[in-house]
Amino acid sequence: MIIKAGFIQTDPVFGSVSQNVDRAAELIASMDAALVVLPELFSTGYQFISKEEVSDLAEEVPSGRTTQRLAALSKERGIFIVAGIAERGNGFVYNSAVLTGPGGFMGVYRKTHLFYEEKLWFSPGDTGFRVWQTPIGAIGIMICFDWFFPESARTLALKGAEIIAHPANLVLPYCPDGMVTRCLENRVFAVTSNRIGTEERGGRDALIFIGRSQIVSPRGEVLCRASAGCEETGAAELDLTRAQDKDLNRFNHLIRDRRPDLYGS
Amino acid sequence: MIIKAGFIQTDPVFGSVSQNVDRAAELIASMDAALVVLPELFSTGYQFISKEEVSDLAEEVPSGRTTQRLAALSKERGIFIVAGIAERGNGFVYNSAVLTGPGGFMGVYRKTHLFYEEKLWFSPGDTGFRVWQTPIGAIGIMICFDWFFPESARTLALKGAEIIAHPANLVLPYCPDGMVTRCLENRVFAVTSNRIGTEERGGRDALIFIGRSQIVSPRGEVLCRASAGCEETGAAELDLTRAQDKDLNRFNHLIRDRRPDLYGS
Repeated sequence: MIIKAGFIQTDPVFGSVSQNVDRAAELIASMDAALVVLPELFSTGYQFISKEEVSDLAEEVPSGRTTQRLAALSKERGIFIVAGIAERGNGFVYNSAVLTGPGGFMGVYRKTHLFYEEKLWFSPGDTGFRVWQTPIGAIGIMICFDWFFPESARTLALKGAEIIAHPANLVLPYCPDGMVTRCLENRVFAVTSNRIGTEERGGRDALIFIGRSQIVSPRGEVLCRASAGCEETGAAELDLTRAQDKDLNRFNHLIRDRRPDLYGS
Repeated sequence: MIIKAGFIQTDPVFGSVSQNVDRAAELIASMDAALVVLPELFSTGYQFISKEEVSDLAEEVPSGRTTQRLAALSKERGIFIVAGIAERGNGFVYNSAVLTGPGGFMGVYRKTHLFYEEKLWFSPGDTGFRVWQTPIGAIGIMICFDWFFPESARTLALKGAEIIAHPANLVLPYCPDGMVTRCLENRVFAVTSNRIGTEERGGRDALIFIGRSQIVSPRGEVLCRASAGCEETGAAELDLTRAQDKDLNRFNHLIRDRRPDLYGS
């Protein structure tokens, strides 16, 4: 099965949730992809400076307005959306990503590996890595810095993911090339949606987001890579049989050749 | 501590063990590195075409002539050598790498993940990934295709490796860039020693080895990368404190931030 998947690379304005969601909706409407991945924390912006601030901007899932809006957009357009938002739940705040589809809200993933000052504002994710079986393939989610730990994409692949949806707010330069390795070693597609722009709030270090959202194939081909500095959309056709085929050659199978008894944990 | 490590990128002649070992010894003698890594199966060549052939060319470890010669070289020059050889032991044949040092033979690693027709000739390694504490740092070994499985380098890092010695006979193009990810995600140095040349024996597919031996730092810098087609040596100074420091920033620690309870195996 061939499906079309894409990203929107946005430049959110910190705290302007309605404006950010409106702009995302406009960009989504300009695309004809069956799956659209949005950046991490696309609706709020990234650089929080107090617990109160993040708590005020976080929303419940799925009842919050952003998830409701994404679910409505998914229904209206008959598409799947993965988007990063600040989630309030069980008295904690998580750096999460929600999946919505033509039937509405489908699920949430809470970021496993928090980066830098995120540890001040968010609780470590407690959902584990999740994969959803959908009519357009098996979609797994990881968020930004999760990529750095090979166990993240590996776990998603072991759970059957064919496409890794990867909302991000990258500031370090390594991820675009690193994701090529992730796709090769797991024979999966990955759609990394990153933001652009700069945030420098409350006297903290300026954060410069690197853009370069991309789509990578199970053979490590960069099918589409955005610029470093422009608001952009990108999409590519993904032949899912390429992610299902784990035979590297007639002797080697990506999963069966693993030897977990010899691996450290 | 700063040590100098290097590779020799050779062009072995299949089956000409004495000639291949002599040439390696000459190249080693031309270097002033404390650690020299040689390619996979550097003494025999790669493309076996029968069980008898591999059994004839395989040697016992450490009593075989190649290991003895490497141990003598290590003693004579006061250096550490990691070299890939065909090993005969317990009635099996392994694709192995031996470590020798100023005190002589130190140990053997048997390749965990066999590639392609290697499965016809070799038994899967039974040593697991090993790390040796030496006066020039903690040296771990993996062989060629092991790189493709992120668990290999991860296991070595979890066991304390500061330098990954990586004998290889690469034919696919992905490893040189992939090893950048391996070094970043584990904050280790890696010395990949690959061969050059072509083998096409017994009517089998021609194998073209890609060269591009390299040394990569814990920050993913390619300190040294050889050509695709020349016999070459390369070396770089490795500041081991850079591999010992697993703090990515003041909030993130490469090992302590792992969440094995959420990882699939």
